[in-house]
Amino acid sequence: MPPEQIEREIVIDKIKNVFRRWGFDPIETPTFEFYSTLAGKYGEEEKLIYRFQDYGERDLGLRYDLTVPLARFFSDYQNEIVKPFKRYQIQTVFRAEKPQKGRYREFYQCDIDIVGSKSLLADATIILTIDSALKEVGLVNAKFKVNDRRILKSLAKSWGIENREIEIARTIDKLEKIGTSGVREQLVKMNFDEGIVNAVIDIISNKPNLVQLGEILKDDVFKYARDELLIILEYLEKFGVNVEFDVSLARGLDYYTGMIFEVKPMGVEIGSIAGGGRYDNLIEAPKGCKIPAVGGSIGIDRLLIALKEFTPTNRRKTWANIIIALADYDKETTIYGLEIARKLQELGYNVDVYSGDKNLKEQLKYANNKGVEIAVVIGKSELESRKLTVKFLEQRYQIEIVESEIEAIFKPKEKRDVGNF
Amino acid sequence: MPPEQIEREIVIDKIKNVFRRWGFDPIETPTFEFYSTLAGKYGEEEKLIYRFQDYGERDLGLRYDLTVPLARFFSDYQNEIVKPFKRYQIQTVFRAEKPQKGRYREFYQCDIDIVGSKSLLADATIILTIDSALKEVGLVNAKFKVNDRRILKSLAKSWGIENREIEIARTIDKLEKIGTSGVREQLVKMNFDEGIVNAVIDIISNKPNLVQLGEILKDDVFKYARDELLIILEYLEKFGVNVEFDVSLARGLDYYTGMIFEVKPMGVEIGSIAGGGRYDNLIEAPKGCKIPAVGGSIGIDRLLIALKEFTPTNRRKTWANIIIALADYDKETTIYGLEIARKLQELGYNVDVYSGDKNLKEQLKYANNKGVEIAVVIGKSELESRKLTVKFLEQRYQIEIVESEIEAIFKPKEKRDVGNF
Repeated sequence: MPPEQIEREIVIDKIKNVFRRWGFDPIETPTFEFYSTLAGKYGEEEKLIYRFQDYGERDLGLRYDLTVPLARFFSDYQNEIVKPFKRYQIQTVFRAEKPQKGRYREFYQCDIDIVGSKSLLADATIILTIDSALKEVGLVNAKFKVNDRRILKSLAKSWGIENREIEIARTIDKLEKIGTSGVREQLVKMNFDEGIVNAVIDIISNKPNLVQLGEILKDDVFKYARDELLIILEYLEKFGVNVEFDVSLARGLDYYTGMIFEVKPMGVEIGSIAGGGRYDNLIEAPKGCKIPAVGGSIGIDRLLIALKEFTPTNRRKTWANIIIALADYDKETTIYGLEIARKLQELGYNVDVYSGDKNLKEQLKYANNKGVEIAVVIGKSELESRKLTVKFLEQRYQIEIVESEIEAIFKPKEKRDVGNF
Repeated sequence: MPPEQIEREIVIDKIKNVFRRWGFDPIETPTFEFYSTLAGKYGEEEKLIYRFQDYGERDLGLRYDLTVPLARFFSDYQNEIVKPFKRYQIQTVFRAEKPQKGRYREFYQCDIDIVGSKSLLADATIILTIDSALKEVGLVNAKFKVNDRRILKSLAKSWGIENREIEIARTIDKLEKIGTSGVREQLVKMNFDEGIVNAVIDIISNKPNLVQLGEILKDDVFKYARDELLIILEYLEKFGVNVEFDVSLARGLDYYTGMIFEVKPMGVEIGSIAGGGRYDNLIEAPKGCKIPAVGGSIGIDRLLIALKEFTPTNRRKTWANIIIALADYDKETTIYGLEIARKLQELGYNVDVYSGDKNLKEQLKYANNKGVEIAVVIGKSELESRKLTVKFLEQRYQIEIVESEIEAIFKPKEKRDVGNF
């Protein structure tokens, strides 16, 4: 069995538990949306939506991300939803394109959002929750960068290109991929004046901090954004988030309106594994008024790659903690094996009673191939004496115990252990 | 928020934990399969497969069940898979039809299977696991019925219609829906002789037990099936499964070859909520040899309906156990609120720090609307004295405690509590 399956489940389980611990609740949305719900939401990426007519002749599209479905869900259930609405959603999304390394046609997204609040605490909650989730799965070296789209707006204004900050943002967003020279080239192609191109390159190369920016930018938009960002940063630092302001952080999506963030694991050459920000203009109430929202997303596939870099060996291949191996297949021995399994299950262990027809040697190989370290061997002789043979496969030793000693050997486990990498 | 979402998640979480406890491991398969993989597998239902060409001009179909994908997965990863292969799979499947009450275009299936074993212990493991899962979610009155396709085969042979037992099975399977007279009508339409129709009706009305059947059926097929069924029944009864043999249980699907079972909750008018059986001819190894398999499936939607019948009130609407309400919104109070939240989270509670901008009264309403019974109120005065006000909303009383008393009031919880209905 491809080990990725269980590793992904372990990681998703842990992340889900952290989301719950921070007060988020689950929603799931259907694989299909009406195409009209998706249309006009993804810019030039719209061509990657899987679109087709179903037999009822409805014009449908497959779930492309989790944000547009959230917006649709929020308007559909507006009256039932308690606001602010804190939801998590972990589902696959679809891209109609040729798969490449690390990019699939169907892949998981893992989102949290708070809809219906402008509070800075909402912004902070998103980042604190994602930080907790990454720590929970064992990614201890995550580095957060934050910025605010309004700062880019203020910069654009200072350069006299007031309505083009989205274009600048989209281009800067590619910095990592195409480098400073690539950004310069693209900006030139987009017909920005040489002075503006130089100014942009200067900013993303020198990365002025908020104090230095304050010397250049004197408008209220900047001041407001800066003051808010400082409070958010204070919340985050107070709770141990490794975070810094980075003016070159832009995020590619058009819809952000305020704070934006991205997360990378330090010491691994990989793109961002999480990101998000505030988007106050995307979600509309039926009467047309805008609902403020802030959210973030963890990229499960990249996260799994990063985790593998840190712990390349000893990867878990099964949930099972113990294999019950049957030295004899008669009815009574089998029942005894099931009884022992039940006892161990009640102590919180995941117990795989071998259900094939191979001999004991092959059963121990089965345990070994699954990566299970403990095999409890049960045969007629064990049944007669109500004993069991416990084999510690890696250490290559075994002990014989009587039934009543089970609890002494197998300490009760937290029942819903979601496992370790 | 529609409460079904969280209830479904709670139920699925619990079921998954039981599957793990019994030694099953997860797989997920893509939403799309090649249409050729699905074709010819679902009999007359094939027209309900969502089929379409994607942009790469591949002929695709949406996941229609979890058994055919399992078979495909097993052949693809045959060499990596440790056998017997015990897998669980919980994903949605699709039907291209008009939705009706309790029947959707997209819905969850929840399957376990053991592939690569003919052992009766495998059959018993499937049923024991499903029984544990149903008990775990609180369905304590589940009634299991078992039969064996070979007994129907033997009956058909005794009636002189040796190769038509599938037609009989498909018709008997509708018994509950169309009644005895409906079964009679359909059998007549299918051109069975009157004598055979009468014999079938006689069997499904009088429901002879295994001893009584033994008086009619003298062939080895019956004897073999009966002896195996008796052993399986002994395993099940030994471990507290409420189970009985029922010769009128047929199951609609063609592919079963041995033991079959179905589960209904007693005292609720609802169809079966779980079922399955042995199918030794469906899965093929590349060289064409057949791989024996046995499996079962829990119908999550019906299970949720049944659970609702038993506990119609007090349905859980959120994972949150505690709301932190902020009486003041200044930075210091907010940080104090987050500190208290973290302490409670570390004790295992799911804590929702209110992140909107409404006043305290509205925040308590928010807690109430979410169905959270405990609100911890934090304001400037609490911050100054490092105290907190704990409100028990339902009981309408509150206490003021100092920070160090938190653990005395909020007992540490098992961290990954998956909640109760």
